[in-house]
Amino acid sequence: MKKIINNVEDIVPEMISGLVRTNADLVKQIDGTTAVVRNDPKFKENKQVGIVSGGGSGHEPLHAGYVGDGMLSAAVAGEVFTSPTPDQIYEAITAVDQGQGVLLIVKNYSGDVMNFDMAKEMAEADDIEIKTIVVDDDISVKNSEFTQGKRGVAGTALVEKIVGAAARSGMNLADLATLGQKVIDNIKTIGIALHAATVPAVGHPGFELGDDEIEYGIGIHNERGYAVEKIRPAKELANELIEKILKEFSDQSGDFAILVNGMGGTPLMEQYIFANDVLNELAAKKVKVSFSKVGNLVTSLDMQGISLTIMKADADWIKYLKEPVTTIAW
Amino acid sequence: MKKIINNVEDIVPEMISGLVRTNADLVKQIDGTTAVVRNDPKFKENKQVGIVSGGGSGHEPLHAGYVGDGMLSAAVAGEVFTSPTPDQIYEAITAVDQGQGVLLIVKNYSGDVMNFDMAKEMAEADDIEIKTIVVDDDISVKNSEFTQGKRGVAGTALVEKIVGAAARSGMNLADLATLGQKVIDNIKTIGIALHAATVPAVGHPGFELGDDEIEYGIGIHNERGYAVEKIRPAKELANELIEKILKEFSDQSGDFAILVNGMGGTPLMEQYIFANDVLNELAAKKVKVSFSKVGNLVTSLDMQGISLTIMKADADWIKYLKEPVTTIAW
Repeated sequence: MKKIINNVEDIVPEMISGLVRTNADLVKQIDGTTAVVRNDPKFKENKQVGIVSGGGSGHEPLHAGYVGDGMLSAAVAGEVFTSPTPDQIYEAITAVDQGQGVLLIVKNYSGDVMNFDMAKEMAEADDIEIKTIVVDDDISVKNSEFTQGKRGVAGTALVEKIVGAAARSGMNLADLATLGQKVIDNIKTIGIALHAATVPAVGHPGFELGDDEIEYGIGIHNERGYAVEKIRPAKELANELIEKILKEFSDQSGDFAILVNGMGGTPLMEQYIFANDVLNELAAKKVKVSFSKVGNLVTSLDMQGISLTIMKADADWIKYLKEPVTTIAW
Repeated sequence: MKKIINNVEDIVPEMISGLVRTNADLVKQIDGTTAVVRNDPKFKENKQVGIVSGGGSGHEPLHAGYVGDGMLSAAVAGEVFTSPTPDQIYEAITAVDQGQGVLLIVKNYSGDVMNFDMAKEMAEADDIEIKTIVVDDDISVKNSEFTQGKRGVAGTALVEKIVGAAARSGMNLADLATLGQKVIDNIKTIGIALHAATVPAVGHPGFELGDDEIEYGIGIHNERGYAVEKIRPAKELANELIEKILKEFSDQSGDFAILVNGMGGTPLMEQYIFANDVLNELAAKKVKVSFSKVGNLVTSLDMQGISLTIMKADADWIKYLKEPVTTIAW
């Protein structure tokens, strides 16, 4: 394993320290935690609902890269591929609550769901109103190694953007939770890997693929997918994923948003080529794309691969997606 | 070779198409070229000096990702690791000239320097005033495979940011060229590779490193560096590069800016850990860091590695670096 790290046990605190120190105008760290909050003096005056997300590290820029005006109020980082602890999540909640309550955005993994739930109970004991939405956009497999039901993957970035923009506009907690759940229900993602991620504490890739093989339907923690096949041209990969995803939408009229997401080790060049093929195929199918985003938004360490997210969107959601934010990475 | 592409000869047009179609609110393509210009109706009214850059593809988001208000007016993409042709550069110049002249920002590679020079002559024949600055920030080797003198690498992004902000503020062409050259003279970069890039038309990595080896001083086109050694902890890598770079600055007082740049296949996690070590070491040496940036800004396809850029900065330059822009990728 070759990685630019020091001691394996120091990876997360050193990473968070690097992120905060190089973006001190945007974010700050809560003392004694790996939670990151806005460094925005006006935030408290605006009396918004707080938006807190988090999860295991290794998916950067998710979540700390999305802390800022118009998106998250705070992000909590666990160890690599491991949920943050309830006390760290609780610290983030109390740091951002302005008396309007706090919405928790959780990816659907058993450890995250459990720990965010415990933090919710701790905060409710302080009379902070909490609601939780659980993102489960990965349609490739029904149950997986680390969760019951579908996994939460790249679509999480879209949820955080839409809900964050709505919170900035003054929406209350109950409406934000309803909006967030409706958004989640309309987001579908599938990923493919060319090469698995290497977890630092493990020291070798999570699974092996042949020199000409890719795996369809992988998760963001090296979870296996639904098929290993020979690699094909980008346009055929795009068509494979689009076929599967569009089956999930009974109504293909109206606005759609897409996210082409790099998994960490795949260059932008390939992401843009794939996005071009996705737009060609969706145009051929008369699916109207009103918002698109390309980049390394929700990664899996050094995994080489890509995921496609398609969202059926209300007009309001497109507006929320397009609004400017002040974050490190959106 | 596993890459998410179609035909090798279509890589650049398909990539540019994907970039433009997914960012149609920000940029547009000049018909019949791989040049990208601002999609900004107000740009022409402002009567700014045009700023045009470009070069071989494979370094994304450089340059097209930096087209927008406050940065580049246009970017011209050549084939992978190959200069754009003079006629494409000329098209970009004529598209953005507003009668105030155009500044060309060129990375120091023989092919780029020659082709931008030919485009300059073509534009001057149209009575468009042109000045050129050549970025040569890579201090690791004196001459290299593709150039005389030092190579132009990640520091190019800082040059584009500073000069772009100055152009927006109304600075004239002669002053922009003087500013740009002064900035270039104060930017120093060294890169390291853990794994070489695979050029699509070649099909295998440009060079081989052992499972525990890294190479110091590599360029962004698989040019070899100054040493191959066993990998060391991130903080030792940071110290190695800092020692070499700081020797280039006789005066280490005043403001400095740093850029920690991922080479395309290295995750943000490792970039932030490295940045944290860089800041620790610079603090120990009493070097004042007034601006820092971390990310995949100037890449080399799927190369795994990182580069460190340190710039000695006037106060104005720090202000220019911090000003908001409307680009895809800064």
